[in-house]
Amino acid sequence: MNAEQLRRLLADVQSGRLDIEEALTRLKLLPYEDIGFAKLDHHRWLRKGFPEVVLCRGKTVGQVVDILGRLSARGTTVLATKASPEMFAAVQQAMAGARFHELPGLILVNEGVAPRGPGFVLVVTAGTADIPVAEEAAVTAEVMGNRVERLYDVGVAGLHRLLDHNKLLLEADVIVAVAGMEGALASVISGMVDRPIVAVPTSVGYGASFEGLAALLAMLNSCAPGVAVVNIDNGFGAGYLASLISGQTRGKG
Amino acid sequence: MNAEQLRRLLADVQSGRLDIEEALTRLKLLPYEDIGFAKLDHHRWLRKGFPEVVLCRGKTVGQVVDILGRLSARGTTVLATKASPEMFAAVQQAMAGARFHELPGLILVNEGVAPRGPGFVLVVTAGTADIPVAEEAAVTAEVMGNRVERLYDVGVAGLHRLLDHNKLLLEADVIVAVAGMEGALASVISGMVDRPIVAVPTSVGYGASFEGLAALLAMLNSCAPGVAVVNIDNGFGAGYLASLISGQTRGKG
Amino acid sequence: MNAEQLRRLLADVQSGRLDIEEALTRLKLLPYEDIGFAKLDHHRWLRKGFPEVVLCRGKTVGQVVDILGRLSARGTTVLATKASPEMFAAVQQAMAGARFHELPGLILVNEGVAPRGPGFVLVVTAGTADIPVAEEAAVTAEVMGNRVERLYDVGVAGLHRLLDHNKLLLEADVIVAVAGMEGALASVISGMVDRPIVAVPTSVGYGASFEGLAALLAMLNSCAPGVAVVNIDNGFGAGYLASLISGQTRGKG
Amino acid sequence: MNAEQLRRLLADVQSGRLDIEEALTRLKLLPYEDIGFAKLDHHRWLRKGFPEVVLCRGKTVGQVVDILGRLSARGTTVLATKASPEMFAAVQQAMAGARFHELPGLILVNEGVAPRGPGFVLVVTAGTADIPVAEEAAVTAEVMGNRVERLYDVGVAGLHRLLDHNKLLLEADVIVAVAGMEGALASVISGMVDRPIVAVPTSVGYGASFEGLAALLAMLNSCAPGVAVVNIDNGFGAGYLASLISGQTRGKG
Amino acid sequence: MNAEQLRRLLADVQSGRLDIEEALTRLKLLPYEDIGFAKLDHHRWLRKGFPEVVLCRGKTVGQVVDILGRLSARGTTVLATKASPEMFAAVQQAMAGARFHELPGLILVNEGVAPRGPGFVLVVTAGTADIPVAEEAAVTAEVMGNRVERLYDVGVAGLHRLLDHNKLLLEADVIVAVAGMEGALASVISGMVDRPIVAVPTSVGYGASFEGLAALLAMLNSCAPGVAVVNIDNGFGAGYLASLISGQTRGKG
Amino acid sequence: MNAEQLRRLLADVQSGRLDIEEALTRLKLLPYEDIGFAKLDHHRWLRKGFPEVVLCRGKTVGQVVDILGRLSARGTTVLATKASPEMFAAVQQAMAGARFHELPGLILVNEGVAPRGPGFVLVVTAGTADIPVAEEAAVTAEVMGNRVERLYDVGVAGLHRLLDHNKLLLEADVIVAVAGMEGALASVISGMVDRPIVAVPTSVGYGASFEGLAALLAMLNSCAPGVAVVNIDNGFGAGYLASLISGQTRGKG
Amino acid sequence: MNAEQLRRLLADVQSGRLDIEEALTRLKLLPYEDIGFAKLDHHRWLRKGFPEVVLCRGKTVGQVVDILGRLSARGTTVLATKASPEMFAAVQQAMAGARFHELPGLILVNEGVAPRGPGFVLVVTAGTADIPVAEEAAVTAEVMGNRVERLYDVGVAGLHRLLDHNKLLLEADVIVAVAGMEGALASVISGMVDRPIVAVPTSVGYGASFEGLAALLAMLNSCAPGVAVVNIDNGFGAGYLASLISGQTRGKG
Amino acid sequence: MNAEQLRRLLADVQSGRLDIEEALTRLKLLPYEDIGFAKLDHHRWLRKGFPEVVLCRGKTVGQVVDILGRLSARGTTVLATKASPEMFAAVQQAMAGARFHELPGLILVNEGVAPRGPGFVLVVTAGTADIPVAEEAAVTAEVMGNRVERLYDVGVAGLHRLLDHNKLLLEADVIVAVAGMEGALASVISGMVDRPIVAVPTSVGYGASFEGLAALLAMLNSCAPGVAVVNIDNGFGAGYLASLISGQTRGKG
Repeated sequence: MNAEQLRRLLADVQSGRLDIEEALTRLKLLPYEDIGFAKLDHHRWLRKGFPEVVLCRGKTVGQVVDILGRLSARGTTVLATKASPEMFAAVQQAMAGARFHELPGLILVNEGVAPRGPGFVLVVTAGTADIPVAEEAAVTAEVMGNRVERLYDVGVAGLHRLLDHNKLLLEADVIVAVAGMEGALASVISGMVDRPIVAVPTSVGYGASFEGLAALLAMLNSCAPGVAVVNIDNGFGAGYLASLISGQTRGKG
Repeated sequence: MNAEQLRRLLADVQSGRLDIEEALTRLKLLPYEDIGFAKLDHHRWLRKGFPEVVLCRGKTVGQVVDILGRLSARGTTVLATKASPEMFAAVQQAMAGARFHELPGLILVNEGVAPRGPGFVLVVTAGTADIPVAEEAAVTAEVMGNRVERLYDVGVAGLHRLLDHNKLLLEADVIVAVAGMEGALASVISGMVDRPIVAVPTSVGYGASFEGLAALLAMLNSCAPGVAVVNIDNGFGAGYLASLISGQTRGKG
Repeated sequence: MNAEQLRRLLADVQSGRLDIEEALTRLKLLPYEDIGFAKLDHHRWLRKGFPEVVLCRGKTVGQVVDILGRLSARGTTVLATKASPEMFAAVQQAMAGARFHELPGLILVNEGVAPRGPGFVLVVTAGTADIPVAEEAAVTAEVMGNRVERLYDVGVAGLHRLLDHNKLLLEADVIVAVAGMEGALASVISGMVDRPIVAVPTSVGYGASFEGLAALLAMLNSCAPGVAVVNIDNGFGAGYLASLISGQTRGKG
Repeated sequence: MNAEQLRRLLADVQSGRLDIEEALTRLKLLPYEDIGFAKLDHHRWLRKGFPEVVLCRGKTVGQVVDILGRLSARGTTVLATKASPEMFAAVQQAMAGARFHELPGLILVNEGVAPRGPGFVLVVTAGTADIPVAEEAAVTAEVMGNRVERLYDVGVAGLHRLLDHNKLLLEADVIVAVAGMEGALASVISGMVDRPIVAVPTSVGYGASFEGLAALLAMLNSCAPGVAVVNIDNGFGAGYLASLISGQTRGKG
Repeated sequence: MNAEQLRRLLADVQSGRLDIEEALTRLKLLPYEDIGFAKLDHHRWLRKGFPEVVLCRGKTVGQVVDILGRLSARGTTVLATKASPEMFAAVQQAMAGARFHELPGLILVNEGVAPRGPGFVLVVTAGTADIPVAEEAAVTAEVMGNRVERLYDVGVAGLHRLLDHNKLLLEADVIVAVAGMEGALASVISGMVDRPIVAVPTSVGYGASFEGLAALLAMLNSCAPGVAVVNIDNGFGAGYLASLISGQTRGKG
Repeated sequence: MNAEQLRRLLADVQSGRLDIEEALTRLKLLPYEDIGFAKLDHHRWLRKGFPEVVLCRGKTVGQVVDILGRLSARGTTVLATKASPEMFAAVQQAMAGARFHELPGLILVNEGVAPRGPGFVLVVTAGTADIPVAEEAAVTAEVMGNRVERLYDVGVAGLHRLLDHNKLLLEADVIVAVAGMEGALASVISGMVDRPIVAVPTSVGYGASFEGLAALLAMLNSCAPGVAVVNIDNGFGAGYLASLISGQTRGKG
Repeated sequence: MNAEQLRRLLADVQSGRLDIEEALTRLKLLPYEDIGFAKLDHHRWLRKGFPEVVLCRGKTVGQVVDILGRLSARGTTVLATKASPEMFAAVQQAMAGARFHELPGLILVNEGVAPRGPGFVLVVTAGTADIPVAEEAAVTAEVMGNRVERLYDVGVAGLHRLLDHNKLLLEADVIVAVAGMEGALASVISGMVDRPIVAVPTSVGYGASFEGLAALLAMLNSCAPGVAVVNIDNGFGAGYLASLISGQTRGKG
Repeated sequence: MNAEQLRRLLADVQSGRLDIEEALTRLKLLPYEDIGFAKLDHHRWLRKGFPEVVLCRGKTVGQVVDILGRLSARGTTVLATKASPEMFAAVQQAMAGARFHELPGLILVNEGVAPRGPGFVLVVTAGTADIPVAEEAAVTAEVMGNRVERLYDVGVAGLHRLLDHNKLLLEADVIVAVAGMEGALASVISGMVDRPIVAVPTSVGYGASFEGLAALLAMLNSCAPGVAVVNIDNGFGAGYLASLISGQTRGKG
């Protein structure tokens, strides 16, 4: 509730169009629906330019179905991340139009609402095993209205694979760089272009990768500036951040 | 055995009412029962205001049944934490009145003994996935005689959900704040009220949450003072500490 | 601003006693003073029951003097922690009544305002080197109106030193346990009494104490429940939390 | 050297305007100057939209003077970070127009070249001690042509200080959130606005802040998406990234 | 091969009783049997006072059977640690007299060879869940000829349980203290007696116990000297070390 | 594409034998095959002296079969590491000559292409449980044309087992030392010979071995110089590095 | 106060030789002297076989002088560790006979009281830089009545230096192994002899030694059993533990 | 002492040319000189192909002078690392020909003994601040007889600086890659050439570089095989290892 709305509400009180108790209620009326185990944020689309995103990990199948059902009932796109096939099976039964991206474990309900905008997001991976996380980012950016292209398996072990796509790298508005192991991809790309890089460390690797810690630290210490780091394996967060940056959801384009 | 008891015992020895060997025995008589693999502390209720709590993790089903049986035989309430459904099935067979809270894995025997007192404990979670830990805290505080209310899924990603319950926050004697991921909930609440906050970091999250380490460190470094931190996922400890603080078990109310 | 105040404000608007722009202003009027590099929170005493506490570390001498001067001008007690002797020298010149506790590095201005209440806080240390942190807790609790007693150098290496003070431990409303090295003091005391223990790990120790990490982890994993942990060396936080718990500042006693 | 330049070079070879050895040289001609201990990148302005930035830490005073002298000789703005007063004294002697921001330790030579663009960067800190890092970000963003505003000392311990500036937060194109301790500021702001947040953890704090690790982990685990994390105390990196995002340097505005 | 044996061998060469090639062979003859995937150390009994101990974890069932078969063929006692029931089933089929301690996963072959000596080892645990590790220590010490007594579930949460056994603690030659969580048991016991304490941290606990790290650090930082720490969950190592200390295997008793 | 090739290409353009667009294409023609989820590097044999090695972990069975099929179609040897039996079953169906080393999980296709050279690589392990990692190194070195010998289970607990093979150690061109637990093997061997030691820490151990961290740190801190450390459990990397060092693949022998 | 003493005290009460209040006093009379900032444990010699040891780090010069003065007034030997030259200068002025070991920073007062016993402690170091810690152990063991020999700079980088002293290693009752860097010394010695090894990791090293962590982990993971680990740089603890083990202080010899 | 020498010694005993006691002595005669605080290894040149290297950190000035004096008295080259200017001043007074490399803190005595061989070592750094560590490696490799070239400040932030020197990279026998921050340099170079890369992480950086940990982990997790990692800042170790690899000291060239 912004200042303008508050001013109007106060004017209604002053003019008698609104009595005090009702005004109190409205001031307290929160833009969410309380279903006990969750507070559903239907006005999030307005405030953040995107519907509530549901992180499925840690929730029961029943909770996921309940939450997605209520959120999608208003017609906005709903995105559920880290979902299991079992969750999707139950969701599909309740919401006919739900769609599943199996590799990243993404459920989409009411897809296709967001209008396509001018933002161009390029999603790049160091290896094949990084693709599930990359797809989480790519689908998220697509849902938020961006043009998305994928450039997979171009890690620094064979630098020419990356250098060869120099033109593509230069055209993107923002680049999502997804890499596990030593995570050098983000630094190298950031040294090549003047675009913001959203760096996603992945838990791909073993031993002293410490479940993605090595890649995370590397990306945080990039010698080339312009690298925005998100959490390990956080493909959704990367896609979301890339969309904010590309300007698509802010109506600037 | 306090000074007064010791004085009386010595007086009995002096007067001849008690001979030396018997006095020795009494001085050594410890208020627990030794069953080999465990020392059961029946006098704990007196000393700590609460019965022995049994952490089931790491014990065999047989040990759990044996310990709960002996402790509950004296009629005091017994609380068993981190119990599996298998453990409860075996306990139920032996102790008819046992009850199970499945989400947090709590077994209660002889529930209802503690008189209700004036303490009011509010249990708050950042998200839905934090609820199992929160329930462990809530049930523990209830068993210890507190009035308990729940306020779930009000994390800082949608601050208005929390601000809307400002009044409830101000009414509580002590607030248990349960949060994983970045654990900001505790700091934010502590900045809003003048009550002690018992902060429970949870292992909810992934990647650089490092199984709850991120939330733990955040809560320890709260810029708002008044935050009491317990172990990751330690819902029981939080409920217990909140009860000590609310004064319920100390007969102060 | 609580619901009651809001109701009254709205009534004034309705009755015409208050026009809309003025109401808007009041709703926005924030209880702090903006001096550029700091936002001073003069109403904190009302909201949190205690004045703004100033953490001096990381601030310049000039900033400290400026902030303390403005805060103390309203007559409330001001507490500045982790202050250097240089800072105190400058403060003393500007505020005649300022007092310095050198061991913990505490500056107090307008001391003595808070009325003495019934809370009794016992501050215990494992060793002599833990005393500076303990004094930070003790002075804070005193400033907040508690009766405070010290019991220093009673670590578990000589358990009888602690057991001998069993009676004192049982009398306290809340006990602040300050220990470095293996930090066992908190667990041992918590096993002896039914009072909340505020545990302060200190950086006393060397090698695998890792600057207080060993004591911190020990306190978080206490096998005896009822232990509230604060940050390493955070004596102020412990004294503040103990005061909230002792009920002194809440007018419950 | 992009595809178009290569095409023209090849055409020149075909037409005989350019002989093979000269073409080879040009293809190899690298846009940097080699001074032994450093390779100076004069064309960086073209490639990255910004001059070479010099990290002074770890370099000798002589090296800093030499590098800044050569870079600034071409007239582009040069920014030197983490510089000591000694370094600036030596630089000033050699380059009359050099200017020093003492708090963050920034040296600027040939300032004022970049044209002012429409980007609006808001730099926010949790506390007063975070200001040096924040200033590094703010000055960097200014040098890169952005309008910059500061909002300092609005940490979550007094949430109303932040909520009061809701309008300012909503107006910014990108917000740089600078916080040590528990680093909750980034999550809270990201939950309030739909702008990208560049989060800078600082080493402000002590004990279990572990030199900024606590804030870093908190920011990486933000429950509100849209948070771009940079290295601990990396004010420059934050200002640079914010500028890339604000679009100023890409000629989009 | 010690100096005396070397002297005799040289004397045999000098006198012609031994020719050079044979001497060379003997000098090289190593006291182990090479079976490709393992080098079996039959003379270990002489050199270390104990047979080769086989750590089963990481070996195949076939390797375990093969190694135990060859080692036990010489009649010495063989101890296999961290063995699964499957391993024991296969071993039992091949070696009739093999015996299994299921809780700690210990296999014993040719048990009973070592003569009983005067050493008295007391094995103490903080809780019931520490018993498997404690039994590994107790059985090892028994196999090495010590009198062993168990004192289980006497952690510091109920200090009187421990204090009550003060006499037993004072009688032992060496005490093995087994504890997870905060691991305070070792410090407390070491403060009570003048015997060497072998401290075994266990992985019992959760959250910030970090799989035994908390207990390990606590034991390393014991404020009471006289504590010998071994690896987390290393019951065998503790029993072995306690035996070396008790003097049993060195023929000193 | 090296300078010589570039010179020739330019000459062809100059002479008209090659037109500009074709030259452009060739300059861009990358020596890999793009199959979407992977970029296959057929010229790797030329550039690195070895075919693309496929890390199977994190890839689907279908991806592994597809990649191995395409790579092996050119007749070069292909090595797939960390493969499961299921992966091999599918590969075998598609490529008749594929062979499986079950212990290390290695798949070999088109084995036997590399000519045998003079390099002699000795692979040593501390224990039996280190053998799977050691075999990964040994088979890799064999595939790359080296003579390989194994010396297993010669850890420092029985130093004579190692000292007895002093001659073998001295004969090797390079020694691969594989050890978990305390990882002392690498230091000890490096103190005995003047050959480069490739040290492979393994995750063999438990408790404070922290999944190989203890061995890794030990090897990095070797007091004897000449130790080259690779990642925990990275047998392939060790075998590959040993081959580069032995000179076999560089045509120096 | 043991059972026998308690029995006698009770008999005195029974017979009237002792009245109740006096008995109470005696039962409470604690064997320490309270000087406010420290509790001095004069009966420690009886209970632990050794005088109070004073860790000087973290204490003021005045506190050290005061504590040493009171402890030494009873004539028992007092050992102060981690003392600075400044502390010794002040101590020497107050206690004429005090002696200083500068390398380890040890102060000794009333030295020479303990009778020489049969225990033989061998102190071994890996390098020259480990000597200060080793001397702390050696002097402590000497003060406790042991024969002590030093064997310095025999690390595994030159194994023959260690092997050459095989005989000396075999003669010792207990060996203190002091090593930084990779800390392999303890494992290697433990593989050579059947004596308990007290392993002291030191902070000697740099980089990935992480202030002694590498050596600490190595020693905890020794593949050869019989290794007792103490804290990093804890020479005193090692000497004390070695003395307990050697039996000297227990009157067993 | 190898088998051949042993055979001859035994033959001398057999023939009577050597009596038993003398043979014993020779077998025990160790090739080092014992000066109490150090065991000097004069035969190291033979065994390891290089003189004893003295790590000065942790030694006193007197010890350094004494050790260097004795080692250099035999005429072999002596290399002292991590030496302070004070140490060099003292050494220079005692040994006229000593030379100092100030940046890396290296002292050389009797330089120039090793004959120049065919090995070509290329030392590369990511930045200017990595040069001190790089020089330690370069000088060490030169002393061991290699041709050494430097390529400094070619980090991945400006990839063209590195690609431009492709030819130089391909010519080297072994490449030492020195980098702090994200340490990507090693992976990138290893992807370009088929030579062994010795990777040296440096402590250059701040914040989440954690004193070189980020670079260390990155190098251990290189996605391009062929990378040999040494300790953080261990320039000497890198130069030594590179020399072993280049074959110079093994007489293979």
